[in-house]
Amino acid sequence: MSSLFAILMADSEALPSLAGDPVAVEALLRAVFGVVVDEAIQKGTSASQKVCEWKEPEELKQLLDLELRSQGESQEQILERCRAVIRYSVKTGHPRFFNQLFSGLDPHALAGRIITESLNTSQYTYEIAPVFVLMEEEVLRKLRALVGWSSGDGIFCPGGSISNMYAVNLARYQRYPDCKQRGLRTLPPLALFTSKECHYSIQKGAAFLGLGTDSVRVVKADERGKMVPEDLERQIGMAEAEGAVPFLVSATSGTTVLGAFDPLEAIADVCQRHGLWLHVDAAWGGSVLLSQTHRHLLDGIQRADSVAWNPHKLLAAGLQCSALLLQDTSNLLKRCHGSQASYLFQQDKFYDVALDTGDKVVQCGRRVDCLKLWLMWKAQGDQGLERRIDQAFALARYLVEEIKKREGLELVMEPEFVNVCFWFVPPSLRGKQDSPDYHERLSKVAPMLKERMVKEGSMMIGYQPHGTRGNFFRVVVANPALTCADMDFLLNELERLGQDL
Amino acid sequence: MSSLFAILMADSEALPSLAGDPVAVEALLRAVFGVVVDEAIQKGTSASQKVCEWKEPEELKQLLDLELRSQGESQEQILERCRAVIRYSVKTGHPRFFNQLFSGLDPHALAGRIITESLNTSQYTYEIAPVFVLMEEEVLRKLRALVGWSSGDGIFCPGGSISNMYAVNLARYQRYPDCKQRGLRTLPPLALFTSKECHYSIQKGAAFLGLGTDSVRVVKADERGKMVPEDLERQIGMAEAEGAVPFLVSATSGTTVLGAFDPLEAIADVCQRHGLWLHVDAAWGGSVLLSQTHRHLLDGIQRADSVAWNPHKLLAAGLQCSALLLQDTSNLLKRCHGSQASYLFQQDKFYDVALDTGDKVVQCGRRVDCLKLWLMWKAQGDQGLERRIDQAFALARYLVEEIKKREGLELVMEPEFVNVCFWFVPPSLRGKQDSPDYHERLSKVAPMLKERMVKEGSMMIGYQPHGTRGNFFRVVVANPALTCADMDFLLNELERLGQDL
Repeated sequence: MSSLFAILMADSEALPSLAGDPVAVEALLRAVFGVVVDEAIQKGTSASQKVCEWKEPEELKQLLDLELRSQGESQEQILERCRAVIRYSVKTGHPRFFNQLFSGLDPHALAGRIITESLNTSQYTYEIAPVFVLMEEEVLRKLRALVGWSSGDGIFCPGGSISNMYAVNLARYQRYPDCKQRGLRTLPPLALFTSKECHYSIQKGAAFLGLGTDSVRVVKADERGKMVPEDLERQIGMAEAEGAVPFLVSATSGTTVLGAFDPLEAIADVCQRHGLWLHVDAAWGGSVLLSQTHRHLLDGIQRADSVAWNPHKLLAAGLQCSALLLQDTSNLLKRCHGSQASYLFQQDKFYDVALDTGDKVVQCGRRVDCLKLWLMWKAQGDQGLERRIDQAFALARYLVEEIKKREGLELVMEPEFVNVCFWFVPPSLRGKQDSPDYHERLSKVAPMLKERMVKEGSMMIGYQPHGTRGNFFRVVVANPALTCADMDFLLNELERLGQDL
Repeated sequence: MSSLFAILMADSEALPSLAGDPVAVEALLRAVFGVVVDEAIQKGTSASQKVCEWKEPEELKQLLDLELRSQGESQEQILERCRAVIRYSVKTGHPRFFNQLFSGLDPHALAGRIITESLNTSQYTYEIAPVFVLMEEEVLRKLRALVGWSSGDGIFCPGGSISNMYAVNLARYQRYPDCKQRGLRTLPPLALFTSKECHYSIQKGAAFLGLGTDSVRVVKADERGKMVPEDLERQIGMAEAEGAVPFLVSATSGTTVLGAFDPLEAIADVCQRHGLWLHVDAAWGGSVLLSQTHRHLLDGIQRADSVAWNPHKLLAAGLQCSALLLQDTSNLLKRCHGSQASYLFQQDKFYDVALDTGDKVVQCGRRVDCLKLWLMWKAQGDQGLERRIDQAFALARYLVEEIKKREGLELVMEPEFVNVCFWFVPPSLRGKQDSPDYHERLSKVAPMLKERMVKEGSMMIGYQPHGTRGNFFRVVVANPALTCADMDFLLNELERLGQDL
């Protein structure tokens, strides 16, 4: 027992963890928060500052001094490290960050995230997350109402890819409840259908779930990126003819690159005819349901069996906030995923254990993802969020009109959403469309400009090849703080960066 | 265009989002942070305050006014909502929270989490997460070194359940690379092995991955909860005799209820003989590797193919922080999970795209889970973290000795970890062990005491039945701020709450 007492005696010394010293804890956290406000929130969202400060990996490693050592460091050193981490990180809340399907810093959502982190609980039982169990239910109810459902189920998942996997798993379980116990071996080959424009998580999910990527039948998309319902019908027939059993169609509301919305009514008709589960991957486009003006893009979504919707994207709720919504009222989620672990989901608790969400999911601990969205929604109301969506559409339209006015900018197509895809044609290539190496040379422009903008830190825009098209820019107009001036800046800056090409 | 311009003109008004008004943003966030410091951090970790303020679900719904409405709310209302959310939430950082495998509030880890939230990026590319891509690599390297590996691979996953699923998916892919494309249908029936004390995520994972729960062969555990290697050997033979192909053994380092450590050396011998992938679910026990005194509990872990380790548990890094570590150096993660999405993982980027981690995972967006751990580790050093582990063991030992001294407390067994399992035998049952309804009556005691402690808000301890044993308490000694006084309080409080039973 002597070594035991030595350790416990040491208790009374100030632990480097600051544990038990509330004054020191508060001082540290206030100091770090000050750094966060100055560096990440103020400078990080200011157009007069860089969106990123590029460093080569080897140099950045040196600057960050990442190694974890035997000895701890002083508070001063820790604060210096916080500054460096923020300094060299990309500012995704910056008005020049157009690179991803998320951008901007919503202060209420951030406030919700800070509270979430300070409370640090898991969403699995009412016992340790009473507020968040009820709140998640209410937020999911609200999202379902926007889909058009007065009842149903749902859950927040760690990202849209996992929401999509959940949908696939639920659909196969509904058709073959035995597969939970017996697996896929005894089943006929299954087939699911999605368009070639769908998110890659459908393929990844099929592999992870043991179905294999071959089970994903790729349906044609039209020139605007929308699934062709006639080809869906044809593919279903082909799969059946090959002896496979169709069970699910995954339609997309807001594709990743073009921002296309699949025709849900026509797809729902096909699903209904064939008795197939309709999943709508609305991770990106779901938030459009808040806009009376634009929600027609998702007409038919109320006919889906499941919807994946990521408010961390267009609503800027913060990574991650991904809801899987279900029309089901038969407790399918719990039946499909439950395992009744007796140490966590005791049945002799003193409250209604139906409140415990843990057996709806395949995880155990689950982060609280509802508070950030709820708090933002309380602050904004439906109206504030609707206005944000409408403004994003309007700014994307403004950008499109400006692109049309300028020389050297060529739209890939008229967008129907806030993804604006276009080529920057540098001076040396203008009017040379008929030159045999035009497309090859044009496809090298976006990567070069990307390198320049990142190294200057002036803005970030994504680019990609797409089908037979060479690299083009995809500007995502999502940051709620954007104005027309930011759109003008973007185009002026591209011209400046590319003037010598 | 008139409606477009109307929307854009409205830009100049103050948006309720506060977007574009840095002074208002800062004021809001400083006010919320003040509430967080006072309510969640100071009161939330103070022994003189309640650990929870219990409300029945219906009453809590009323108090929280959860409904999301059309109109937004004032800043004053929002701050009041923040206070209510914190007030009615369970304080997992409180010294009386013994309920879960995580507890305590590490200020450096929380600082890291606040920075993470303020930067709000995704871990998938060096392009938008340069600091965190390099940092994750370094943290994983450090964790691997503690396992005993000088090379390897790894990734942070959204929780231990998904880390375990990753391991199962990697093991089957390594054996049958075709299954990624062709699925499980063409494979022989697969078998994986784990003990009856393993975490329920192994069963859930087998169902989710399409293997089915039948593929999980349950190996006997001894009376201390440790897997019996001889029975593992026997089960492998039985599975083979039934025509199944064994491919993975999941051993547990730190079981959920008893805190047992499977004998890894003996299990590794069995795996080696049969050519099986050895996964170690060290979600709970992995942090013991930091202690020179106690790491022998995991002797043999260096022979594993994969290890799941959750620093959000014993190290209090914050939910979620779950590392999957691999000995593999053949890029198995990327080969198994990759899909080469051209819009995100362009190969013509201006930096080394091998840095992009997105194709190692089945998610797309992925939260930054490394910073909180890295910052805490920088502040503590190996030494500070080691001391924390040693102290947890010492306090658990102190608690055990006190339990032995007191009447009416009965240990389930001598613990080898920081899970201390025991019955509280109320006065009316003392000395009545031979009474026929003793066990039935005893098993009702823990739920009753749990209800009392939660409704008083004085402490939270988990209980569960286990095998043939009726409900007993499981105290988890994990909060780094605990002292002997907290252990004394816990036992005194149980006696007080149960004196009339």
